[in-house]
Amino acid sequence: MKKSEALLERPMTQKGAGTMKALVYHGPGKRAWEDKPRPVVQDATDAVVRITTTTICGTDLHILKGDVPTVNEGVGIVEEVGPGTTRIRKGDKVLISCITSCGTCAFCKKGMYSHCTDGGWILGHLIDGTQAEYVRIPHADTSLYPLPAAADEEAMALLSDIFPTGFECGVINGQVKPGDTVAIVGAGPIGLAALLTAQFYSPSEIIMIDMDDNRLAVARSLGATRAVNATGDKAVQEVLSITEGAGVDVAIEAVGIPATFDVCQGIVAPGGRIANVGVHGKPVELHLEKLWSHNITLTTRLVDTVTTPMLLKLALSGRLQPRKLVTHHFLLPEMMKAYDTFSSAARERALKVIVKKA
Amino acid sequence: MKKSEALLERPMTQKGAGTMKALVYHGPGKRAWEDKPRPVVQDATDAVVRITTTTICGTDLHILKGDVPTVNEGVGIVEEVGPGTTRIRKGDKVLISCITSCGTCAFCKKGMYSHCTDGGWILGHLIDGTQAEYVRIPHADTSLYPLPAAADEEAMALLSDIFPTGFECGVINGQVKPGDTVAIVGAGPIGLAALLTAQFYSPSEIIMIDMDDNRLAVARSLGATRAVNATGDKAVQEVLSITEGAGVDVAIEAVGIPATFDVCQGIVAPGGRIANVGVHGKPVELHLEKLWSHNITLTTRLVDTVTTPMLLKLALSGRLQPRKLVTHHFLLPEMMKAYDTFSSAARERALKVIVKKA
Amino acid sequence: MKKSEALLERPMTQKGAGTMKALVYHGPGKRAWEDKPRPVVQDATDAVVRITTTTICGTDLHILKGDVPTVNEGVGIVEEVGPGTTRIRKGDKVLISCITSCGTCAFCKKGMYSHCTDGGWILGHLIDGTQAEYVRIPHADTSLYPLPAAADEEAMALLSDIFPTGFECGVINGQVKPGDTVAIVGAGPIGLAALLTAQFYSPSEIIMIDMDDNRLAVARSLGATRAVNATGDKAVQEVLSITEGAGVDVAIEAVGIPATFDVCQGIVAPGGRIANVGVHGKPVELHLEKLWSHNITLTTRLVDTVTTPMLLKLALSGRLQPRKLVTHHFLLPEMMKAYDTFSSAARERALKVIVKKA
Amino acid sequence: MKKSEALLERPMTQKGAGTMKALVYHGPGKRAWEDKPRPVVQDATDAVVRITTTTICGTDLHILKGDVPTVNEGVGIVEEVGPGTTRIRKGDKVLISCITSCGTCAFCKKGMYSHCTDGGWILGHLIDGTQAEYVRIPHADTSLYPLPAAADEEAMALLSDIFPTGFECGVINGQVKPGDTVAIVGAGPIGLAALLTAQFYSPSEIIMIDMDDNRLAVARSLGATRAVNATGDKAVQEVLSITEGAGVDVAIEAVGIPATFDVCQGIVAPGGRIANVGVHGKPVELHLEKLWSHNITLTTRLVDTVTTPMLLKLALSGRLQPRKLVTHHFLLPEMMKAYDTFSSAARERALKVIVKKA
Repeated sequence: MKKSEALLERPMTQKGAGTMKALVYHGPGKRAWEDKPRPVVQDATDAVVRITTTTICGTDLHILKGDVPTVNEGVGIVEEVGPGTTRIRKGDKVLISCITSCGTCAFCKKGMYSHCTDGGWILGHLIDGTQAEYVRIPHADTSLYPLPAAADEEAMALLSDIFPTGFECGVINGQVKPGDTVAIVGAGPIGLAALLTAQFYSPSEIIMIDMDDNRLAVARSLGATRAVNATGDKAVQEVLSITEGAGVDVAIEAVGIPATFDVCQGIVAPGGRIANVGVHGKPVELHLEKLWSHNITLTTRLVDTVTTPMLLKLALSGRLQPRKLVTHHFLLPEMMKAYDTFSSAARERALKVIVKKA
Repeated sequence: MKKSEALLERPMTQKGAGTMKALVYHGPGKRAWEDKPRPVVQDATDAVVRITTTTICGTDLHILKGDVPTVNEGVGIVEEVGPGTTRIRKGDKVLISCITSCGTCAFCKKGMYSHCTDGGWILGHLIDGTQAEYVRIPHADTSLYPLPAAADEEAMALLSDIFPTGFECGVINGQVKPGDTVAIVGAGPIGLAALLTAQFYSPSEIIMIDMDDNRLAVARSLGATRAVNATGDKAVQEVLSITEGAGVDVAIEAVGIPATFDVCQGIVAPGGRIANVGVHGKPVELHLEKLWSHNITLTTRLVDTVTTPMLLKLALSGRLQPRKLVTHHFLLPEMMKAYDTFSSAARERALKVIVKKA
Repeated sequence: MKKSEALLERPMTQKGAGTMKALVYHGPGKRAWEDKPRPVVQDATDAVVRITTTTICGTDLHILKGDVPTVNEGVGIVEEVGPGTTRIRKGDKVLISCITSCGTCAFCKKGMYSHCTDGGWILGHLIDGTQAEYVRIPHADTSLYPLPAAADEEAMALLSDIFPTGFECGVINGQVKPGDTVAIVGAGPIGLAALLTAQFYSPSEIIMIDMDDNRLAVARSLGATRAVNATGDKAVQEVLSITEGAGVDVAIEAVGIPATFDVCQGIVAPGGRIANVGVHGKPVELHLEKLWSHNITLTTRLVDTVTTPMLLKLALSGRLQPRKLVTHHFLLPEMMKAYDTFSSAARERALKVIVKKA
Repeated sequence: MKKSEALLERPMTQKGAGTMKALVYHGPGKRAWEDKPRPVVQDATDAVVRITTTTICGTDLHILKGDVPTVNEGVGIVEEVGPGTTRIRKGDKVLISCITSCGTCAFCKKGMYSHCTDGGWILGHLIDGTQAEYVRIPHADTSLYPLPAAADEEAMALLSDIFPTGFECGVINGQVKPGDTVAIVGAGPIGLAALLTAQFYSPSEIIMIDMDDNRLAVARSLGATRAVNATGDKAVQEVLSITEGAGVDVAIEAVGIPATFDVCQGIVAPGGRIANVGVHGKPVELHLEKLWSHNITLTTRLVDTVTTPMLLKLALSGRLQPRKLVTHHFLLPEMMKAYDTFSSAARERALKVIVKKA
């Protein structure tokens, strides 16, 4: 697309702003914490934010493997704003949304920021992300959220991406309702974010499915009423047995591979919803020969972050506790070590790894 | 399923009620208009209806090929009611719903009659259908709709199945809205029913896609704003060209094969809906590697006939004109000839074939 | 209306069925626990239920004052069924819905059982209610809910009326959403039922408003985040102060007088909802000169009991605990004493008074 | 409110920009077309638009009577933009929305532009309106809509205010659905806009109620299926007679006085909606003593203009024909005469009066 190319070609930084440290990606498996020019305001609606807290997420590792580019998260202090900003001011403590929204295109006007024609999923993807000391944020007024000075930065940093993702793509699209039986396939950070936010709607049963007993134990401690450790057909059988053959009202796919999608197809009840959250790299086989008559709804979604204000409100009031997913802490200069830990997530029992300014 | 077996084992008729003529199916490609015992009331909530108008539909031919069993449609006069009926009376002129609803199970209570635990899609499928002089209707109070004496029977007969199907599975599930761009893949009777009912919501564009120029011409005359005669990739290219690359808000699949489903995947815009109406016999490949981030909604549905009262109201007021799909007329004793005509639908330019009592 | 007259003229009991004890109403303030003929099956779809647990509710007292007739609640055992029932069987333990639904009229088909053309709010109103040893239930298949043998009868009895009322008329109509600020005016049993069920949707704030400190203390213990004891303008000022001038997203009116309705008008935020639950005896003044531009939604509703299956599911799983509203217990022969206690609710600190079979 | 005061105190024009002609209001009943300083860009996100087509609306006359200030409508050419605008460019032909939206506040983010904390209903109300040769538009990117060069300006000018108002406040809030029976009380321009846009959803009956036979005749020609000329109780009786006692599914109040609101209360069916569109100057009496149990929904709304893009699409495609409401044409210098005509709307049979640049 032309927009992306234009964005890529535009110089991300300019001379004279000094340097900063940043995680630089030199191809699959190769990364370094090294000097880069500091970003500056380029467009009238830009802001530059000094990162105080960031975090490494699943797709960060995907990009290291060469899969998909990273989405970034974080909290920081606004260092500089362009002349076109009216709401965000220098010195504000802000939450950075993983999705950039211009606020004026047709997609933004209908709340589909993910497909903003001058933004969307560009941070750490088409433009530099938050794994650096400073980051430039286009359309700052509609892409940053001011935080109270006393806000818990670690908790807030998780609202950049994984909480809106689990909530919007999984829970809202899955239309979780009081009394529902919900299954979540994948107990990684996104699946667990879906688990925590599904409870906003009081389902009567939340069945967590994964192959890692440690993560299932975490899921139980976070509110899952059942934990199923099984692969493919066996997982399907076990869920059908738990539901006495009825299947689940909502199946949330939080992995992104054909096998886990198949589990969702196998367990969804007539009238139920499959909410896809996972980033898929291949097509899947959809069993329309069976499902055509089952009155199901299947949704996909790149997170829009339209629920960020609501999640912020619930996190500030303590009703939502994102911190429960934090397992490790590092300082910015230890970024390489943080990545190593996250790369061995299962062995290290890592969920969210927080990296803070020293 | 046990329910189905029980229904099949239950004798459908009893001695002493006399005989009637009925279309009897003797295996793939073999059928005959012959004597059968007349049905009688078996359960307290049954009614027996004398058919005055019926019609042959697409899936009738599927069953003759051995694919899927038939759904039946029709209008008639109530001849006899069981002691448990309170609303339907002997002598009423009634519309027969293709879906039987008990009105008391959990599925019926939430408007999902298609999955009624003591009904659903049983007529002409698990129990005898309407291609006969008489038919037994279980749960008559909730499965028959009284008609005014002056109602146009031919128009009404099309409200048994194809109009609720096109409307509920295609238009409602597709969430057609004023100003939307809608594409309908398949200009057979169901696709045309979707075309007529999509106009209830004033989309700004309805693109009809088929490979039969005659049917496309009919579609144009019934309100399609564009007609595309093309296969697979070419259809996709043409629709993208019509929409200036944006794709359609709603893609309605009204055929039931992988190729037409693929067209829908190829043309749906980000944020759009794919509403599957077709009866599929095979799995399809779903391109989640692309669609995972496109915020789409894909729905499947066996018609519930919950909108039958509304469609009746609109048909009686003349706002909906189902008769526009009727191309041929026969009398009941000509049932075999009616089938022959419908079997050569393309050559005969047949859409809906009405069969009336002499 | 003719329907009501017909129902009233129909003899409620027949000779030969023996007698039972029942609370008989002899005019304002006059009641007695005396012999009455036992009810019998009159219509094919009736059931007769032997009451094992019942409860006295607010509107019971209204009727004693001559205001509005009573709605009744309870759990019992099915003693006899008519030949037209297919789902409910003799010996079933059942929850009695306060709303009778025929399941076949246009209102029932759209889930508005409250206005069923052959039912609705008739129990204890147009026909005898549950304050007796036996009760006749018309349309038993759609008006009774089978319970597991082990179900806690006291908890279940509260699902006949007050829980669906607080939930449907207050919480669902108020569209309570995660993060919302909700105010409930009136901390009686219905208001408290709204308080408990509002929590299904994780509002960030629930402000309870009443003039009885004891009831406010109960509300705090049941999840209210704020309690306001104040009248009229002062209540409005206090809520506006709590919300920093913004007002509340949802105001639930659970009393039924002009003064409490005024509080709702005074505190609702632009874009907010006023959900009326209270039974009003007089018109109210609606401040359209202010509200016309405030984008508010005001709803009224006679409970439909369409959510009873969902509430049952949540109560059986323990997520909803109706028993928390029970303050007093009596046996059926002590019915008069139970009424006396309830008549002095404030002094006796009575919320729900349970009356059980000895 | 402080915001409003700030807006009023801010000088609307600056020296050096030259002068223009404008309609100036000198108190109730006094107005003049006289010289005023031309507006200039004041804030970075402003645009200045040269008016090419404008129109006089109902509330314009209210302000002349001293009631409520005017809302303005129009189409023009962008003359100048501030440095913070990114979408709107000098030379664009644009539709001016009657509601100014900053696009970044909490209200704008949820589509409630009417309550924008830095905009809303300010044009021609807190800041100068479009009855002048030039107008300054704050937040131009989110408050102006680019038009194709060939767009019909007269039709488009009606999309500034009355069409979104009739549609959003009346039709969308009234949840008009296929098959519904709709009544519209008031056949002025707004009521007629509701009439035209209600037809997007195919109601089976639209009953227009007014006391002016000419306007009722216009309504019939624009799609009303019934016209009722009657006051108060008689109108109620006639509508109940037309609906065989059932009442209407949707009652749209498009006048703004207690008597017309009363008609709506009297005709709404159980389960129905009352959508208030009229600007009220006094409280109304709401009959909760009757309506508490009727399951009705009553809405109020200041237009948000969130549907403007959709209405534009339908008007550009010809599906919506706003021009049908235009009865008179004048040139800008004839503005005083245009007002005189509109002031005698009944006698002149005036609906929308278009005023164009010479």
